[in-house]
Amino acid sequence: MAALDAVLSTIDANLDASRERLFDLLRIPSVSTDPAYTAQCLRAANWLKDQLNGLGYEAEVRETPGHPIVVGHAKAKRKDAPHVLFYGHYDVQPPDPVELWETEPFAPRLADGKDGKDIVARGASDDKGQLMTFLEACRAFEANGGLPCNVTFLFEGEEETGSPSLPGFLAANKDELSAADLALVCDTSMWNASTPAITVMLRGLALEEVIIKGPSRDLHSGMFGGPVLNPIHVLAKIIADLHDLEGKVTLPGFYAGVPEIPEDIAEQWREIDFDEAKWLSEIGLTRVGGERGRGIMEQIWARPTCDVNGIIGGYTGAGSKTVLPAQASAKFSFRLVGKQDAKAILESFRSFVRERLPADAKAEFLSHGASNALQLPFGSEALNRARRALAEEWGKEAVLAGCGGSIPIVGSFKRDLNMDSLMIGFALDDDRIHSPNEKYSYASFYKGARSWARVLHALAAA
Amino acid sequence: MAALDAVLSTIDANLDASRERLFDLLRIPSVSTDPAYTAQCLRAANWLKDQLNGLGYEAEVRETPGHPIVVGHAKAKRKDAPHVLFYGHYDVQPPDPVELWETEPFAPRLADGKDGKDIVARGASDDKGQLMTFLEACRAFEANGGLPCNVTFLFEGEEETGSPSLPGFLAANKDELSAADLALVCDTSMWNASTPAITVMLRGLALEEVIIKGPSRDLHSGMFGGPVLNPIHVLAKIIADLHDLEGKVTLPGFYAGVPEIPEDIAEQWREIDFDEAKWLSEIGLTRVGGERGRGIMEQIWARPTCDVNGIIGGYTGAGSKTVLPAQASAKFSFRLVGKQDAKAILESFRSFVRERLPADAKAEFLSHGASNALQLPFGSEALNRARRALAEEWGKEAVLAGCGGSIPIVGSFKRDLNMDSLMIGFALDDDRIHSPNEKYSYASFYKGARSWARVLHALAAA
Repeated sequence: MAALDAVLSTIDANLDASRERLFDLLRIPSVSTDPAYTAQCLRAANWLKDQLNGLGYEAEVRETPGHPIVVGHAKAKRKDAPHVLFYGHYDVQPPDPVELWETEPFAPRLADGKDGKDIVARGASDDKGQLMTFLEACRAFEANGGLPCNVTFLFEGEEETGSPSLPGFLAANKDELSAADLALVCDTSMWNASTPAITVMLRGLALEEVIIKGPSRDLHSGMFGGPVLNPIHVLAKIIADLHDLEGKVTLPGFYAGVPEIPEDIAEQWREIDFDEAKWLSEIGLTRVGGERGRGIMEQIWARPTCDVNGIIGGYTGAGSKTVLPAQASAKFSFRLVGKQDAKAILESFRSFVRERLPADAKAEFLSHGASNALQLPFGSEALNRARRALAEEWGKEAVLAGCGGSIPIVGSFKRDLNMDSLMIGFALDDDRIHSPNEKYSYASFYKGARSWARVLHALAAA
Repeated sequence: MAALDAVLSTIDANLDASRERLFDLLRIPSVSTDPAYTAQCLRAANWLKDQLNGLGYEAEVRETPGHPIVVGHAKAKRKDAPHVLFYGHYDVQPPDPVELWETEPFAPRLADGKDGKDIVARGASDDKGQLMTFLEACRAFEANGGLPCNVTFLFEGEEETGSPSLPGFLAANKDELSAADLALVCDTSMWNASTPAITVMLRGLALEEVIIKGPSRDLHSGMFGGPVLNPIHVLAKIIADLHDLEGKVTLPGFYAGVPEIPEDIAEQWREIDFDEAKWLSEIGLTRVGGERGRGIMEQIWARPTCDVNGIIGGYTGAGSKTVLPAQASAKFSFRLVGKQDAKAILESFRSFVRERLPADAKAEFLSHGASNALQLPFGSEALNRARRALAEEWGKEAVLAGCGGSIPIVGSFKRDLNMDSLMIGFALDDDRIHSPNEKYSYASFYKGARSWARVLHALAAA
């Protein structure tokens, strides 16, 4: 343990410099969904490559059909050490609505938060802060004789848009990347500010945009209103039809492959201290919505959803405009669980839309990615070691959690590289990821780095 | 008739200069709904005042709570001449979507159209081109000994936003404005490119924006999706519920005061040559929508509607964003006929919305104006004289038409000034008003000026 203690001390002693490095990365507005930020995504990739090179690791920025992927390789000090692949993503969500940020989204700062200091910036929690906990752990090992594991680094820049280039990249580089025994993924949350979590269930995600077209041009609602179909009305009817009065999704076949929660998982979740009223009040609500009769945690971790993430049509500026729009569009997302088949659900959805088109209405579909849900094996040796390592750092057992969000790469690792993933992250539920004023707890950042040092040490222990 | 012939000849001889004056006015982007164009509205008002002054008329730009109103007064050459009030509006709709314009919306040009030359610009038809037909007729009279009628000019700058300042302005200036015997309004269409029309029925208009609020902030759809209410879904359900399967509006009380068309009007409409398939094909459609069993002309001229003119919520940029929005909003408009009560309908609408709010959803309402429908008296002497004057210019009887759009000022003239209005306009149905590439037929412009010369002459005849 003496070697590990030295590594942990190094992390503690270099905290200010670590934070400055993270701030440098947060200053790069690497928004992947908007083509206006393409150069910034490349800048973030180069910054990470330089960091890896600075630690003495070989690293490259590799082109893809979309944003580049950074791949690096570091050797352990011992020949027979295990080999892990660490995954993180350098891309971030758009900062809008920008006017709701208290300070500039890409000007990171320390602020007082309810659990101590917070790092505030777009990407602070999702995923730049998380990614850097691992790099800082590696840095501390290098200052103390070297890494206990061989490490392959994989940093992508399209996680926020459904990772379209990753499957092809994994296939093309399968020999190089599947040399690792296990993937480590840092893109998930703790149970709460003092209790770590390892995520063992991930919802899948299917994204589909629909454009409903009617008249060939925008029309004056006085001169044309009445006999002319309104694409906003058509779209609204489709959205309204997607849920029944019990909050269930009405798409034919939608619940095929949706399991009830296994009893052992349900048991651990029941024992966890969770205050529904408090969770709701933090987002301005008082009642559990969604599927009637299902609790918050169950719905988020283990139930599928259908949501409209955005809608637009007609005049949306100030005041009024008496226009009948030529088209209206909405972005739909489906969160998936168990053995739901994302492709089948999107097909069912497209049929559902087409069946609801009146004469003269047309629908166009834009797919923005689809991935099935994942459930990771319990009781593996790596999972047990990681649980013990986290308990040592935090003084509490890690919760084996579900995750409402999708991490498509974990599915790709299993499918394309036949590799299991350990998902350990230090985000908190109130980090406002994807929202204005995103933050990452400063404690998450430095205890996160210490946690990775302990996990790497534990995985390599004889 | 010699005097009238001289006036008509003057109009013909000065057409190029007339067109250049209209182009000057079209170059001013006087968009009333968007505060960014406030100074441009004032500029347009001042331009019109200068035109009136240039004709030797007294004129002022008068302040209102919104955009200013131009008032001018011109004396007839004869003491006992009748007195008319001419109304037009200098404000225009926003040019968006700007990318669909073939040339700049505020750079007027002549283009080849299917009925001869067209004047292309935002406001060419609605209402700057129409307004200038009357001014050019006055100018020709001034070059030939003076006007046959006393004329009060009233040019407003808020017609496209429901004329919020006009009723107060009329009340405050009632003595000055009600000196006229009759209002002349130039903001309506011809039956077709060769057949004039006088509009005798106007639909009313009630405008209401609704903002549905749910969670206190935007949320990640993975981390929160399921138990959290989605304001887009709530709004879509409201919109979907507003029409039944027969295309009727479901608001309680909506059809109170909606009459069937009087038989004499129905008779004239049946005799008019109207090609439904052609009308539909020009806007990219093949079927009559709206209320089942009602034809296009009846629906537009004599039936009420409910339409969503704009909707927005969540992420609407390129690609996807897995966000649950904190709010969503839509702009609703109701076209009204007969004795429908705009205020009662808006109250019914607000109740309808509130009844459909699930727990934790809130609705905010923004009113953008409300006016009831109008039906003008048939068989009045002024109407008969105007019909004969138009027949002389065009060689065809004028159609007594309905109008789907609202002209709130006509209601105000009746209510506040006890003054009837003659609505004569030269727009064509394919003028693309409120749409990209708005145009005004060059023939409408010059024969419109000639028509006004004939109408003024006829109104003043012994």
